[in-house]
This record gives sequence, structure tokens and C-alpha cells, in this order.
Amino acid sequence: MTTNKSPIVDIHTHLYPPSYIKLLSARTTVPRIHASTSSSETDRLIILPSDDDLSLPATSRGRPVGAAYSSISNKIAFMDTHHIDISVVSLANPWLDFLPSSEAAEAAQKINDDINEQCNLHPGRLFAFGTLPLSGPVDATIAEIQRLKTLKNMRGVIMGTSGLGQGVDDVALEPVWAALQETETLLFLHPHYGLPNDVYGSRAGEYGHVLPLALGFPMETTIAVTRMLLAGVFERYSSLQVLLAHSGGTLPFLAGRIESCIQHDGRLKKEGRLGAGSGRRSVWDVLKKNIFLDAVVYGEPGLKAAVATSGVDRMMFGTDHPFFPPLQDEKEWLSVKTNEEAVRRVFEGDVKMAEAVMGGNAISILKLGV
Amino acid sequence: MTTNKSPIVDIHTHLYPPSYIKLLSARTTVPRIHASTSSSETDRLIILPSDDDLSLPATSRGRPVGAAYSSISNKIAFMDTHHIDISVVSLANPWLDFLPSSEAAEAAQKINDDINEQCNLHPGRLFAFGTLPLSGPVDATIAEIQRLKTLKNMRGVIMGTSGLGQGVDDVALEPVWAALQETETLLFLHPHYGLPNDVYGSRAGEYGHVLPLALGFPMETTIAVTRMLLAGVFERYSSLQVLLAHSGGTLPFLAGRIESCIQHDGRLKKEGRLGAGSGRRSVWDVLKKNIFLDAVVYGEPGLKAAVATSGVDRMMFGTDHPFFPPLQDEKEWLSVKTNEEAVRRVFEGDVKMAEAVMGGNAISILKLGV
Repeated sequence: MTTNKSPIVDIHTHLYPPSYIKLLSARTTVPRIHASTSSSETDRLIILPSDDDLSLPATSRGRPVGAAYSSISNKIAFMDTHHIDISVVSLANPWLDFLPSSEAAEAAQKINDDINEQCNLHPGRLFAFGTLPLSGPVDATIAEIQRLKTLKNMRGVIMGTSGLGQGVDDVALEPVWAALQETETLLFLHPHYGLPNDVYGSRAGEYGHVLPLALGFPMETTIAVTRMLLAGVFERYSSLQVLLAHSGGTLPFLAGRIESCIQHDGRLKKEGRLGAGSGRRSVWDVLKKNIFLDAVVYGEPGLKAAVATSGVDRMMFGTDHPFFPPLQDEKEWLSVKTNEEAVRRVFEGDVKMAEAVMGGNAISILKLGV
Repeated sequence: MTTNKSPIVDIHTHLYPPSYIKLLSARTTVPRIHASTSSSETDRLIILPSDDDLSLPATSRGRPVGAAYSSISNKIAFMDTHHIDISVVSLANPWLDFLPSSEAAEAAQKINDDINEQCNLHPGRLFAFGTLPLSGPVDATIAEIQRLKTLKNMRGVIMGTSGLGQGVDDVALEPVWAALQETETLLFLHPHYGLPNDVYGSRAGEYGHVLPLALGFPMETTIAVTRMLLAGVFERYSSLQVLLAHSGGTLPFLAGRIESCIQHDGRLKKEGRLGAGSGRRSVWDVLKKNIFLDAVVYGEPGLKAAVATSGVDRMMFGTDHPFFPPLQDEKEWLSVKTNEEAVRRVFEGDVKMAEAVMGGNAISILKLGV
């Protein structure tokens, strides 16, 4: 903060505020937090039904929710260790997707107010993406999108790929897209549901969590945004702005194949949805004008593809904290270093570009400056 | 062939030889070929059970199998139109995966002999990847791998991601990997099964075949090769060589995330499968030494990621003919042009590299020279 180095901004970093921890701790079905019964254990967050098996030892159920999940001072310490000047925090999955309709609106307000206040504890260093009451009536979501504009530290909203429950190509989402566009609210689209387990085969359990985390999440994001593309969302809401988690899942790599498959689809052609006059926007065009990507792809090849599709000015650094902590007690996290090094290497010849991705872009795109 | 331009080689191009067409035409359950009943219709290849709906008009069931699928003169004409000097043809999906065990070995021999003879009709212009009797006893597959070495035009084998039926991380495949390595036979790993339909949501049908073709296929390939990586196949068979369809599905983009998820997996660490002394090879290392990629990715961003992971010397041009034909009657296929242009553009400053990807690499890797 007091150095004259260019600022580093983390736009993909999660926080479960106290109100959310409380909500999950009061639950008896997944998602829930299982309170530890001894001082040597930490509470466990259990998201998957398959993890909620009381015959398993507590340490095999879900994942530990330590201070890194909910403590704002822990977040600040993490930022300091990694020279991160500003973080734009967001509630992690599964957000409020699981709530009964009648409870959603109030829970979202409470959590958003809570996060906004947490940010107030460190003015200028913390901003946030808000949470939407998507399981409630669509009007509640629209009201919350509008209300979030009145909260000082809010800079957009985070949403899972299930939308209102039927996915992000659901026509019922039209008023939500309209509200996001009208209020110029950035949508952070983030995975949670992965792919059905059977795609990983019978040996998947031997590989720890690698297959669902490494493949399921980015594939889920890719499928979701492709459904938005095919449903014509970006034609109808041409200034809607979407930030995709994990550098777009795999969208930058598959963009060409998606565009080619569209151009070669007999049914789409027959229905007049291709070619001049159809009003269709190419995948490339949407990527350059409507899609922002985080730089959370853990390597140069992926980052190069991401930069080549959306452009360097639409890439923003992130950490995915508190996930992927080091397995030893290294102070600097390997996951963070891997992503920062990829940025530094891809832009080796152009420090200005690296600085833009590491922070400058986020400051101007999300209006984080003082 | 008579020009002094550098040769163009197509290593991803499919052929259903007459013996395979005959086999599918005799079947009454999918996969099967439904014979046309009028002269204005073509025969239809029906692969998916959901497509085999007799209440649908014939033209909505499966896809037409015209001369492009089985005629060698059609293949040569396609090659001439696109200035392709050499093609390495392979049976397309679903190969022989569906055959009863007792029929597999003989069918594979017949089809491989058939394809080898088709190649003989155009010496030096046609080579092939053989088909394996994977639904039969594993010994039959090993015998066929060895026999293929005696067929003049064979340059490897093609395999689906189901392996012997349980996926490519199946321990029962160990003798197959051993035989491939020992005989220095290249394995072309190719998708067919996609992802379960429900991942695409209830509106998928409105989008023609875009979601399963554009996303399901490359995701299937990525999951398969990641399962091989996690099962330690490339540690045990360190000189096994695998060509991945569609530039690796999404592997080049996700390689960093896969490697990071492995390095951060508590279970793998606890089992001593990480770190020094574990003998584990990084994903990056395998990509550079064991993986070949075709240049069938329809755009520069994907191609850049592919080149950055496996290196320019491991990339080989392909067309995926006869799939993705033009919707009009354009002589030059858009799908082919898109892939060739991506190569030319990515290597704009280095014609030698473009020439290597367009043909030179394939000639030296697959020993196609005279």
C-alpha cells in the first residue's frame, strides 16, 4: 500500500461471513457445517451428499472450515503475505442455491450487508461481489441487484451455473439479465455442481479430489456460458458483462470449436439462426466485448489462450483463496505463485501488460480507485 | 504432389471401409445403418439410441452416410481440393466397441485388411491407423497390435475412451499399453461417448448438435487422458506415445489446473504419490514427451495453448473429414480452412514451423516418406 509498486488486485477470493457460517451450522442436511467435537479438530464444511457419511471419520467428511474461510483478519494477513493490495471478495459456492424460496431474500440481504460491513473494516482494501436470492421469487433477485448498488463496497454479483434452478439458458432469467445490464452490474459466473460422478469412472476415488476439481468445475463453467451463448443472451443483452471463473473454464480453448460447430449445424441454419441477417454474434465477438476472465489457470498455455480470446485488457488476477492451501506450511501459497508466475512469464517482454493483469485492469473495470 | 510446395498431411480423417458399412447395415440395433427407402434419400448412420426413433422422419434420424464416408475416390478428391498430399485415415467412432466378444477379433482383422488395401490403391498418398477388437479378449487386441505391424500402410491404432469397456484407467489395459510401447505403435485416442445428456439442460435440443459435438467430445477426451495420467500409465509406460484428437480436447488449457490440483491433493500426498521420490511425472512432462496433438481446434487461441504445451514439433494438421461438411456446396470446406488458417496465423513469422505442423511433422513422426 505504501510502496510505489503497481497495485495487485485479487478478484477471485472467497469469504464465508459469520452470517453464512451461522446459517450453515444450523442446518442438518447438506450443505451444512458439522461442528467439531474435540479441540484437535476443526469444523467441517460438507457440501456433497456423498461426503455426509457419518460412518466416515470426521476428518474424511467434507473439508475443514478454518479461520481462512470466515475471518477478515485472516484474509488481510493472506493479502499481506502475497503483496495483494485489494481483494474483491465473494461468497463461495454453494451460495444460497439450497434455500427454500421463502428464506432466500432475507438471507441474501443479511449476508450482503454482513460482507459490506466486513469490507468497511478495511476501507479501500476490500470490495465484494454480492450474493443473489436465486431460489426465491425472481423479483427478489431483481430487488437485491438494485439494492446492491446502494452498498458502498459492492462491485457486482456472483452466481452459480444453475441460475434459478434450470441453468443459465432459462428464459425465466430474462428479467435478471435485464436488471444486470440496466444497473451495469458485473456478473461473476462460478461453478459448483461439476459433472455427474460416473463420467470419472470407477477409480475416481483413488485420485482424491483431482477429477471433479480440475475438470468438473471448468467444464461446468464452459457448458453454462455456452448455453448462454446458444440461447442468444448476448444478442438480447449486448452490454451484459460476465466474469468467468478459472479463465473461462475451458471456453478460450474451445471457442473456435464452438463457433465452428454452430456454423456447421444444419438445424440452426434451417431455422435461420446463422448467416447474415440472423443477428447472431460470433463467439469471438462475445468473448471480446462481454466476457472478462480471471487469470486463475495455473500455467502459461491456458493464460495465452485466454489473452488471445478476450484480450489483455479483460484479464484480472485472482487467487481462489481460501481454496488450494499449501499441503505443508509454506507461507507463500504455491497456487498463488503459480498463477502470478504465469502472468509474469506470458508478459515477460511487457511489464505494463503484466501490471494491468495483476491489478490495473481490475481497478479500472471495477472502479476500485480512491 | 508434383508441386514443390511443402507437403500437407491430414492425420485426422475418417473412413468407413465397405466391410464396416456392411457390418453396420446388417444390424438392427444402434449403432446401425438405416437403408434409404427412396432414391432421393441417403442411407443414415444411427449411433445414438435417442436418434433411433422410427416416429421421426428418416431425415431426422442420425446422419446421412454418403460417399464421403466410405469412398476412397471421394477421399482422394477431397484431398486434391484441399491440396492435401497424404492422409492417414482411421475408422471413425464407434469403431468395434459394440461388438460381442466372439466377433471382435475377426471383424477387426477384416476391417484392417480392408483399409490397408484401400490405401494400396493410392500408394504413398494413403496410410492408416488400425482398429482394435477391444470388446474381445485382451489377447486378441494384443495379437492385432502385433499383426498391424505387418500391414504395409498401418501407422498406429485408433481407440475410443472406453478402452476395454471400463475406461482408459482400467488395469486390464496394462498388457495393451505394454504391447503398444513394445511395438512402438502410436495410439490415437478419440472421443465418441460424450457426456451424459442432462449436463446440457432441457433446452439442449434447440441448439442442434452443438453442445455434444463442441463440448462433449473434447471434454470426454480430456477426462480420459487425465484418468490415464492419474492412474500412472505414463510412469509405467514412459515411452508410450498418444495422439489426442481435437488438440487434446481441452488438456492443453487445463494442464496447469490438473497439475495444481494434483500438487494440492491431501489424499495423494498422504499416500506418498507426490513429491520427490514418488516417481510421479508432471502433466507438463508427459505432454512434452508422450502426447501428440492434432491441429483440429478451429482457432488461434486454442492452437497457441496446444503449441505451448506439447511443442510445435508434436503438432500435426488434421481435417476431421468427412465430418463438418459445408452447409452450402462450397468446394473448399470452411472447417478445413479454419484449421489451416489458424496454423498459418499462429506461425505467421515462421513459415518453417507452419510447414512442419501442416505436414513435415507427420511425415517424420509417422514415417510417411518414400
